[in-house]
Amino acid sequence: MIDNAYVTIITNEYYYHGAVALGISLCKTDTKYRKVVLVSDGVNQELRNNLRTIWDEIIQIDVLDSKDIRHLSLIGRPELGVTFSKLLVWELIQFKTCVFLDADTIVLRNIDELFCRDELSAAPDIGWPDCFNSGVFVFKPCLETYRNLLKLAGDVGSFDGGDQGLFNTYWVNWVNEQDKRLPFIFNVAINMSYFYNAAILKFKRDIRVLHFLGLDKPWLRPCYVSSENVGKNLDTSRDEFYAKWWDFYNEKDTYFNRNEVHKSKTEH
Amino acid sequence: MIDNAYVTIITNEYYYHGAVALGISLCKTDTKYRKVVLVSDGVNQELRNNLRTIWDEIIQIDVLDSKDIRHLSLIGRPELGVTFSKLLVWELIQFKTCVFLDADTIVLRNIDELFCRDELSAAPDIGWPDCFNSGVFVFKPCLETYRNLLKLAGDVGSFDGGDQGLFNTYWVNWVNEQDKRLPFIFNVAINMSYFYNAAILKFKRDIRVLHFLGLDKPWLRPCYVSSENVGKNLDTSRDEFYAKWWDFYNEKDTYFNRNEVHKSKTEH
Ligand SMILES: O=c1ccn([C@@H]2O[C@H](COP(=O)(O)OP(=O)(O)O)[C@@H](O)[C@H]2O)c(=O)[nH]1
Ligand SMILES: O=c1ccn([C@@H]2O[C@H](COP(=O)(O)OP(=O)(O)O)[C@@H](O)[C@H]2O)c(=O)[nH]1
Ligand SMILES: [Mn+2]
Ligand SMILES: [Mn+2]
Repeated sequence: MIDNAYVTIITNEYYYHGAVALGISLCKTDTKYRKVVLVSDGVNQELRNNLRTIWDEIIQIDVLDSKDIRHLSLIGRPELGVTFSKLLVWELIQFKTCVFLDADTIVLRNIDELFCRDELSAAPDIGWPDCFNSGVFVFKPCLETYRNLLKLAGDVGSFDGGDQGLFNTYWVNWVNEQDKRLPFIFNVAINMSYFYNAAILKFKRDIRVLHFLGLDKPWLRPCYVSSENVGKNLDTSRDEFYAKWWDFYNEKDTYFNRNEVHKSKTEH
Repeated sequence: MIDNAYVTIITNEYYYHGAVALGISLCKTDTKYRKVVLVSDGVNQELRNNLRTIWDEIIQIDVLDSKDIRHLSLIGRPELGVTFSKLLVWELIQFKTCVFLDADTIVLRNIDELFCRDELSAAPDIGWPDCFNSGVFVFKPCLETYRNLLKLAGDVGSFDGGDQGLFNTYWVNWVNEQDKRLPFIFNVAINMSYFYNAAILKFKRDIRVLHFLGLDKPWLRPCYVSSENVGKNLDTSRDEFYAKWWDFYNEKDTYFNRNEVHKSKTEH
């Protein structure tokens, strides 16, 4: 289905690691759909080449910031900068339905069924569960929506300074629409603070997407080197989830090298 | 309306402080309904007298524990002990509809409208938002429900060892019933870990019930002595909420003394 795509965005090298692990997790959970990553100038050619071995499409974007003349007039809020680059995904009108995934997520079990959902479908945010978390959402690319969001960003702004506050202002009725509510298993927030361990344990096998919300990104924690350590020196669910991220990330060389072989073949 | 009641439970002196502040908050937000507190042997006569100046009814309960012969056979899990005492509220069949409030909650604005809701209505839990938090819920006292819950406790147990895990097993379909979902403003969890500050700020004025979840109970934090300090040496929303608890609690002597006057009058 060429109409459907998974989409993420990375504006710098920091989130590149996330896109590597996320892309591999999508491959290994056998998605039928296209995998698209939006990159800005902050991601150099070598990194793009690596990503290309995992993702189907790399699309260049201009970060929505003060240098962006095209949008400046609409936003009128240059200080909001990179924060609103996520809005650009609504420009991907070559696709009908997309699933956006933050670069700090990984897919543990196939989630292709999400493409049956309508815009805007998302899971509750653990901080204020009557808002949705904007790390995973189903959307329909559309230039009008894109312009409306930009206008809202300029007129009202975002109550949290980021895309989540903006989207929750635009889709303010989300909380009242049962069919737009994704089960929490599609966006399970894992971080170093509050953690309802018993529930995580109970629903562990059902978890589809892990989201490493906040500052403790898994690529900053090489101690969780792989799942093999879980039960030996790692033992909480949290450790286990960080290790799962590393399990995907550690496979990167297989992907990168596969491309090397491919490249040298083509060059002959 | 004699058919409706707010209900809390305290099994010891620790939670007594909570019941004092909660009761005062219900008075000051002008509830029309009865206020009932269940107390066990862990709460002495002096404390009960104090509570009686704020709450309409003090009801003696036996903690559901291994010494409780009546329930032991049903539960068959003596180790679960005090945890399941919350089940006893279903025995209050003199009432038709009740709103249960944990002793570590306070009401900021009148919530009497909750009595129009059906069983079991509750707000999402911030740890796993597809489960409800059992600190605030609407229920219909009923001996059969009570027995069913006890049986479930014995047969299956609770996935978190507490009432919340048990209730979420019994009302497992809660997440699919939009009308059973209370807005988060009816049970806003405040604690020392994760905190979505921007959302709290945005929705602050709408908040009806604060819930001091976890270990940082406000009575352990006398530093937040009153709201007058907010903006001086206190300034986060979190501090402000702890101070609000103290504002209620600090009024206790007015209530206690009022009763003294009343008592001495009666004694003459
Ligand atoms: O400087 C940035 C910040 C964010 N992002 C993208 O925006 C998402 C949201 O940011 P993040 O996941 O760090 O926010 P959180 O989920 O922790 O709130 C990231 O996953 C990236 O996909 C990015 O590309 N560059
Ligand atoms: O030893 C106990 C433990 C709990 N409770 C009651 O059960 C509620 C739930 O416990 P708590 O609020 O501490 O749990 P949390 O909301 O932090 O998960 C308390 O508010 C009290 O009403 C009690 O009376 N005695
Ligand atoms: Mn994220
Ligand atoms: Mn509580």
